[in-house]
Amino acid sequence: MEPVGQQPEDNGEAAKEKVTLPIKQGSIHGFESLHRLLEASLSPQLFQEVSRLLLGLNCGCPLERIALLETTTSVSEKHYFDLQAFRFHADKEPLREPRIVRVGLIQNSIALPTNAPFSEQKTAIMQKVKPMIDAAGASGVNVLCLQEAWMMPFAFCTREKRWCEFAEPVDGESTQFLQDLAKKYNMVIVSPILERDLNHGETIWNTAVVIGNQGNIIGKHRKNHIPRVGDFNESTYYMEGNTGHPVFETAYGKIAVNICYGRHHPLNWMAFGLNGAEIVFNPSATVGELLQPMWPIEARNAAIANSYFVGSINRVGTEVFPNPFTSGDGKPQHSDFGHFYGSSHFSAPDASCTPSLSRYRDGLMIADMDLNLCRQLKDKWGFRMTARYELYSELLAQYLKPDFAPQVIVDPSWQKRP
Amino acid sequence: MEPVGQQPEDNGEAAKEKVTLPIKQGSIHGFESLHRLLEASLSPQLFQEVSRLLLGLNCGCPLERIALLETTTSVSEKHYFDLQAFRFHADKEPLREPRIVRVGLIQNSIALPTNAPFSEQKTAIMQKVKPMIDAAGASGVNVLCLQEAWMMPFAFCTREKRWCEFAEPVDGESTQFLQDLAKKYNMVIVSPILERDLNHGETIWNTAVVIGNQGNIIGKHRKNHIPRVGDFNESTYYMEGNTGHPVFETAYGKIAVNICYGRHHPLNWMAFGLNGAEIVFNPSATVGELLQPMWPIEARNAAIANSYFVGSINRVGTEVFPNPFTSGDGKPQHSDFGHFYGSSHFSAPDASCTPSLSRYRDGLMIADMDLNLCRQLKDKWGFRMTARYELYSELLAQYLKPDFAPQVIVDPSWQKRP
Repeated sequence: MEPVGQQPEDNGEAAKEKVTLPIKQGSIHGFESLHRLLEASLSPQLFQEVSRLLLGLNCGCPLERIALLETTTSVSEKHYFDLQAFRFHADKEPLREPRIVRVGLIQNSIALPTNAPFSEQKTAIMQKVKPMIDAAGASGVNVLCLQEAWMMPFAFCTREKRWCEFAEPVDGESTQFLQDLAKKYNMVIVSPILERDLNHGETIWNTAVVIGNQGNIIGKHRKNHIPRVGDFNESTYYMEGNTGHPVFETAYGKIAVNICYGRHHPLNWMAFGLNGAEIVFNPSATVGELLQPMWPIEARNAAIANSYFVGSINRVGTEVFPNPFTSGDGKPQHSDFGHFYGSSHFSAPDASCTPSLSRYRDGLMIADMDLNLCRQLKDKWGFRMTARYELYSELLAQYLKPDFAPQVIVDPSWQKRP
Repeated sequence: MEPVGQQPEDNGEAAKEKVTLPIKQGSIHGFESLHRLLEASLSPQLFQEVSRLLLGLNCGCPLERIALLETTTSVSEKHYFDLQAFRFHADKEPLREPRIVRVGLIQNSIALPTNAPFSEQKTAIMQKVKPMIDAAGASGVNVLCLQEAWMMPFAFCTREKRWCEFAEPVDGESTQFLQDLAKKYNMVIVSPILERDLNHGETIWNTAVVIGNQGNIIGKHRKNHIPRVGDFNESTYYMEGNTGHPVFETAYGKIAVNICYGRHHPLNWMAFGLNGAEIVFNPSATVGELLQPMWPIEARNAAIANSYFVGSINRVGTEVFPNPFTSGDGKPQHSDFGHFYGSSHFSAPDASCTPSLSRYRDGLMIADMDLNLCRQLKDKWGFRMTARYELYSELLAQYLKPDFAPQVIVDPSWQKRP
């Protein structure tokens, strides 16, 4: 289904056509999401049962959709982005009021061909994303997160250094653009950008800027784990982050950001949990067949293991670059790294999750979540209490030593087979 | 769907009828597995696509079933146990021969009412499980794992200490029973039992005994994380294990055992990985709605994150006890803790997995796996190389201090809402 390995025409015109072509529903081979595929194929009763199993709805209640304003849904139709909104269930508590927060995730494709002037590309992406941010704001979203490096094409597969020119300081153009919207809508916005660190030799980082609901910059976090996988050896462009695992205490709860490849590292998820996160965003850019099966598993497991909500975001579309490149897989040169499959969604600490946004279209996913659910699950399962962290602190300290000897018990009666 | 909270008649006759009643296919409300439900409901073409997505089959090949001997399948029909067998895909390597191992998982219900004499109960379970072990042996299974505390009812919900009498030393009756079969079939057998530690004050442990393919006892591992959830405060019976995270180097590869509740702890999974495990078994006993959504997520995530295979096993059936008990949930006393939903399955490091065994019947799940796949995935994704263990060793050391201060960045312009 995925166009990985497909070789589009590698000239500017082809690129232009490919990235600007509006994708109409039904015109694409494949399906928008597994959920919709099953909904279209099963009887309503059976679909409800299968959906309950796949989404982990334990509370006995069906998946609850949120009705949004007509004006919002018409905006989504006009701009052809996928709009979905759900509510997670939590128990009422005798001593605390519910702490219900409305959270949004935005996924998008780029807006202009990658051979357009960089400033125009960036402006066009902002213009493309703005109706979705407006829709989030108009829907009363309290905390919104954009996708990884949302203000540029994900050009790291090219190995060309000129794409560094998209980088901005933390208080740069993209941040300023979002600060106005954050203030206007009284909304916290997490903005993952390519950062230019002016105070440290103009180095580049993969950074999430956290903007408060009054338009102020609360702080930043830099991607902790850098992939060296396939075409994404991103250490060509930036190194492992030096900001630890900060949790940002906002007006609407404690949030953190696990950028992209960090989702493959359970310890990274754990660290945000130990620092008290209630919602962890995973803004990503990921393509292709091999990754897609991991996508829902890792996010849901993180939500379960750490008793917090997870918002997973992936960009959309196939990005075609001006100069063809090889991919270290013995195949001929080509101009794109594959299809970013979208599929943004939320996971909850009770092991439930929402359906996913489209694999092909821009989208805004909204969920209402009572942050009290995090502690309810901690009390219920006691994972923190039973974690025996001292064992693992000691093990990791040993493992770090070059002469670490694994704990292996060899069967004495076993002799190596010839 | 799950009979949690249902109140069976709490007398011996009801118990006897309930646990000895053979469950016939189709006679039960509900369905045997999600996979079979979808197979019966979707067109073959659509089922293949949905199955590919749900099982994470990336390699382009459909799920491959293994054809077993006619004699084996007829044994499964005679004894009415679910029998499924699959093959995982791995690449051929230029420098290493494939290391293909055939691995088996057995799930079962108990065999006699829980008010029968203990010795008869234990013998009856052995007799019930033996045809499945024989079927595994006759099918050429190299490594076989049974379910948690397989030689007894999972009576810990009763809080009655008399069930401790089922406990055995590591070289006790159950082990001896399996040693003969291990030798006969040249098969490694992992046997999770309730252990009586004679050399340490006759204390009780939840232990997996690892029996080599020549019938020798290679060693043991004791459950690391003990639940205090619902009716399962198992620390009433045994405490946290003191055997670390051993990996057993057998004739057929390096295996480890993450017993039951340890699957909720990513650090526990990690530790077996750091010690070099290629297959980690998760023998379990778990019931009800709340746990079931976690079941496939945690195992698959562990396989992905640690680049090893996981074999997940859960017992089957509803176990009715002689004396009713309450469950700390305000509900009236009752005699069972709910339905153990089976659903044993394998997960692979490439994020794929097999369908699950029946939710209602005994079963034997077999899979062929090339252990080379573990290193192939390590090389591909580089999770170990990019893990930054030093960060987490330091964080855990800090976290263990009573005065640990989480890394929190408070929005300075945020004022607590009234």
